[in-house]
Amino acid sequence: MILPPKLRTGDPVRVVAPSSPFDPAAFEAGLSILSGRLGLVPRMRTDLTARRAYLAGDDGRRAEEWREAVADPEARAIFCARGGYGAMRILPAVDPAPLLARPKVLVGFSDVTALHAALNRAGLATIHGPVLTQLSRAPDDAVRHLQALLFEDPPRAGPWDLPAPGAGLVAERTVRPGRASGALLGGTLTILAHLAGTPFAPRLDGAILLLEDVGEKPYRLDRCLTQLRLAGALSGLAGVAMGRLTGCDDGGVLAADVVREAVLALGVPAIEGLPVGHEDANFAVPLGARATLVAPAPGEEGPPRLLFDGWSARAGA
Amino acid sequence: MILPPKLRTGDPVRVVAPSSPFDPAAFEAGLSILSGRLGLVPRMRTDLTARRAYLAGDDGRRAEEWREAVADPEARAIFCARGGYGAMRILPAVDPAPLLARPKVLVGFSDVTALHAALNRAGLATIHGPVLTQLSRAPDDAVRHLQALLFEDPPRAGPWDLPAPGAGLVAERTVRPGRASGALLGGTLTILAHLAGTPFAPRLDGAILLLEDVGEKPYRLDRCLTQLRLAGALSGLAGVAMGRLTGCDDGGVLAADVVREAVLALGVPAIEGLPVGHEDANFAVPLGARATLVAPAPGEEGPPRLLFDGWSARAGA
Repeated sequence: MILPPKLRTGDPVRVVAPSSPFDPAAFEAGLSILSGRLGLVPRMRTDLTARRAYLAGDDGRRAEEWREAVADPEARAIFCARGGYGAMRILPAVDPAPLLARPKVLVGFSDVTALHAALNRAGLATIHGPVLTQLSRAPDDAVRHLQALLFEDPPRAGPWDLPAPGAGLVAERTVRPGRASGALLGGTLTILAHLAGTPFAPRLDGAILLLEDVGEKPYRLDRCLTQLRLAGALSGLAGVAMGRLTGCDDGGVLAADVVREAVLALGVPAIEGLPVGHEDANFAVPLGARATLVAPAPGEEGPPRLLFDGWSARAGA
Repeated sequence: MILPPKLRTGDPVRVVAPSSPFDPAAFEAGLSILSGRLGLVPRMRTDLTARRAYLAGDDGRRAEEWREAVADPEARAIFCARGGYGAMRILPAVDPAPLLARPKVLVGFSDVTALHAALNRAGLATIHGPVLTQLSRAPDDAVRHLQALLFEDPPRAGPWDLPAPGAGLVAERTVRPGRASGALLGGTLTILAHLAGTPFAPRLDGAILLLEDVGEKPYRLDRCLTQLRLAGALSGLAGVAMGRLTGCDDGGVLAADVVREAVLALGVPAIEGLPVGHEDANFAVPLGARATLVAPAPGEEGPPRLLFDGWSARAGA
């Protein structure tokens, strides 16, 4: 697995819109954090704001924008404007080879899960983190956490309350106690289900599966998990790390209950309630790199947590 | 492909609920048509009305109900109470072997697409037709059409305005002109996408793909079609027969436009607007049997249509 090099203040970075159109004000606010707080120099195409129904311009535009971002010899990262839908449509045009040769770090989540999957599968680690339209609503410690993962090598422990050295996140609860290590893969459950059967579906054997979602009723989350199970994708998992299921409850049926039942049936260590997903506090998480999931049993010391040991070790990679 | 034998007045038939719970009044109304107009003798388990969140009872109940229905030595058909969600969950417990040995005709649609797929794949033809909760709202000619497909051998041309002999349906429009023959497979697009990557996904090479859906925004239909395309499932199609996309438009974006664009890109004969799907007029369609799609070019004679030549020939099968 290739870990992209750390960023430095003043680095040019590319901003792309591979999915849906976005709110200009939220985007501009995110851009200010990129150039202000993070000290990066965003570059983007003028047609980034294109709109074709639910897509940020047609497939040709979005694919060409992606290729340009990858080819930019100075840019050291690719930030996504927004998720929504559309990244899947350009996957056949996403060639991982130039990124493996000159790694840049991809930052985004939600629909960007499709791009993460394609790059992780090709052997490049990425960052599951805020999209630009979400960034200005991020609490201070989430921005600081993103900064640490992107700029520090190894990232220093931040206010997210984990022992130094290295980085990680604290979860709310143990679902099934145990400890597991493996490549951290995944993202938005619905996108993962819609990658099943395609050449871009993550290879989850031995992996810790990260899951979050938004606005999908419990039966829909169930359907996605059932698909992944029937496809055999979940049979070799090392562990499961659940983020947020935002706005997924339906009447008396709680999304967390439905997902927990499915996760418990997998028989591997699992935690839930990581601050990752479609809420303002969407803490960044390295995908593709090795992580360690610690799910304490009742009475065991320390919080349920996910440690980014692979990413923290990238100085030596 | 095995075509199940025709029904006779007075035949016992099984009624099952493999998916979601249902409205009792709509169910009873459908049951009266089954026993009245169609002259069949419905049999069912007393726990058919079980309810576990969005499921008609737990997986064990629904799987056992399915096995009982299949094993009933007198029942000659299996009618589904309602779709919703849940059939996928019991697919590993659905053994096609006893049905291949003693064929019964399965009738249902929507979530039942998962059962159709599993049985069609195993070599048994089925009927994509109304669920019981929908049956009492069906217009007279749709009930007559179902009756012809189930009871007549070969079915006589009905009031659906096609030349005798044999049965078929008239569509609203040609999407891409041409003529194609092949096994008719498919059903609800979303379910087909969620079968991708699993051992139950239909094998669509050489097939005419039937598609319909309800309540899915255009970007979601796009995502399902993109998944099937990336999975290679659409590359060997003989043709596409589009039913209804009920309540799928979103603001100015029309579902039919989105699906038509994707279907046109496949380069095979295609028609749209068959009276099949989540509306009162859900005309029955044989799945698994050979069908012929006729999509007249401008100026060519006759309506766009789908002919059930395989099913119509079952007397000789």
